[in-house]
Amino acid sequence: MKPVTLKQIAEHLNISVTTVSKALKDYPDVSPKTKALVKELAKTLNYKPNAFAVNLRTKESKTIGLIIPVIVHHFFSSVIKGIISQAEKKGYLVIILQSNESYELEKKQIDLLMSHRVDGILISLANGTANFNHLNEVIAQDKPLVMFDKIAKIVKCSKVIIDDRKAAYIATQHLIDTGCKRIAHFRGALLPQNSIDRFLGYKKALLDNNMPYDPSLVYICECGDMSFEEGKKNAQQLLKDHNDVDGIFINTDLVAIGAMTEFNKQGVKMPDDIAIVGFSNWFMSSVISPTLTTIDQPGYLMGKTAFKQLYKEIKQRKNNKPVVFKDIVLDTDLVKRESTKTVS
Amino acid sequence: MKPVTLKQIAEHLNISVTTVSKALKDYPDVSPKTKALVKELAKTLNYKPNAFAVNLRTKESKTIGLIIPVIVHHFFSSVIKGIISQAEKKGYLVIILQSNESYELEKKQIDLLMSHRVDGILISLANGTANFNHLNEVIAQDKPLVMFDKIAKIVKCSKVIIDDRKAAYIATQHLIDTGCKRIAHFRGALLPQNSIDRFLGYKKALLDNNMPYDPSLVYICECGDMSFEEGKKNAQQLLKDHNDVDGIFINTDLVAIGAMTEFNKQGVKMPDDIAIVGFSNWFMSSVISPTLTTIDQPGYLMGKTAFKQLYKEIKQRKNNKPVVFKDIVLDTDLVKRESTKTVS
Repeated sequence: MKPVTLKQIAEHLNISVTTVSKALKDYPDVSPKTKALVKELAKTLNYKPNAFAVNLRTKESKTIGLIIPVIVHHFFSSVIKGIISQAEKKGYLVIILQSNESYELEKKQIDLLMSHRVDGILISLANGTANFNHLNEVIAQDKPLVMFDKIAKIVKCSKVIIDDRKAAYIATQHLIDTGCKRIAHFRGALLPQNSIDRFLGYKKALLDNNMPYDPSLVYICECGDMSFEEGKKNAQQLLKDHNDVDGIFINTDLVAIGAMTEFNKQGVKMPDDIAIVGFSNWFMSSVISPTLTTIDQPGYLMGKTAFKQLYKEIKQRKNNKPVVFKDIVLDTDLVKRESTKTVS
Repeated sequence: MKPVTLKQIAEHLNISVTTVSKALKDYPDVSPKTKALVKELAKTLNYKPNAFAVNLRTKESKTIGLIIPVIVHHFFSSVIKGIISQAEKKGYLVIILQSNESYELEKKQIDLLMSHRVDGILISLANGTANFNHLNEVIAQDKPLVMFDKIAKIVKCSKVIIDDRKAAYIATQHLIDTGCKRIAHFRGALLPQNSIDRFLGYKKALLDNNMPYDPSLVYICECGDMSFEEGKKNAQQLLKDHNDVDGIFINTDLVAIGAMTEFNKQGVKMPDDIAIVGFSNWFMSSVISPTLTTIDQPGYLMGKTAFKQLYKEIKQRKNNKPVVFKDIVLDTDLVKRESTKTVS
């Protein structure tokens, strides 16, 4: 059974397609009697307007595009959930694409979304993205674009982020407040803004507390699917390099859990030998042993907020109103658990 | 800068829109010279065909819809990843909706996808879905539909599943083989087919080994966001009800981890006092203590396979070929870890 068309309704009632169309849209130049007939028949036949035809006319697709680096990831799946739930409330559908941290893929996906005439795009950048022409082109074509989490400060659009530097500062300060004297940092990949900012927050906390900054205590993680393994690897290396480290601020919970698995294996006691603070507050962090002190990153709220901002800009552009870009900074929380000592 | 239109190219070259359109599509009745001119200008101006207009003509949207019960869930996010990666290879975009385990929402989402004229729908049912009219309507309208994981056997369409009964049998048999004499089962919600099948596999393994089936050893979990809590609750109840249980087969890893957290807290030793087998092989299961023996459920492969089947049916329908529905059963593996004893 194929979907019913306007033409079939028109033929059945022996009136023109235009009249059927006008009747369904309550135009004043169609008689109430005809309107009633058309509407009843449309209902009986389960007629649904062709979204494509509507889209072509209104120039709205009522879909938006979302590009994220990875899907199988507690934080990003929380963001997706936030976006989808908010979009659905406003009658928008969400097309999701995964860039796999690849700039090339991200670029292609932007093109794909543009040719599908989405009404707007939400993006969290791939680690590999250092050139922003593909994003500037979206903006040049007047298509609303909102970045979240992994952003580029240089691109002129709205952004929804957390204050990574401040959160990292608070995490490091907590290690200092609970008695740590020599604090290492497992940082993320070199490029993304949030891993730079977390590193800077860590460094500032040390300096503000008159503790020397020692670059040999900073370990790089190429955070991707392998980040649990990277945590293990960095933990092994740290134990070889330094026997005096008593605290680590780790860029993300998954890496922290990798490190903790290694420490558990080697009999390093947490928090007594080494205290740990992670970042993200994955569900996992509350069930491993010891439970992990971490920064709670509001994924669901970030998704919701990013969609709300995009929606606002879609409406502003549609109504030919000036669009004001916003930087929205969401709050984070330090969640204290067993992997750090209580304040002495 | 608005996207360039065919009309602008036509005006610029002082030819008709039809000629421009034909030139871009390499129609033989346009001269090679005109074709070259049009193509060069289109390239210079970064012309992209309007996907809506193309869709309206070809009646293909090159998008598919995906409805899943929950997004923030290791198994389902792996499925999403499998679907998206395969869809992208074939030039399809994926619209994702979350039913929140609600039948009402699922029904609305089916309508929404149909009115957006997606080329096909992939669905894993909500726990609340016991009426299948919304799905039968999709099939009646000749729209390809493939169910995966949480399916309804009664709906006439292709399905991608694992053999839940067999996997549960193997899980229970492993507990028996490693010396367990009295085995409990934490099952899922009452309705979904997979929780029924896992229960039946558990029961059959007991009976095949001449072990009595005792309904008081079966605990219901309303698996949702709260399933970690449900695992804890059921573990507490089990310790109150029975002091002789030495093994539990648990419907899903998250519930198992909840139970293990409670056992760890109460000093119940795993696997010596109680051995545990979970289901799904979440990443988490390999990092908690003790590590969890579980059934590996191939989420990524399931997503990929479901899309491939949908794609096949989209092509068959497009070419007016008969569509043969398939039941595709994917293999699972028992992953032995520390929460069960080694074979004695």
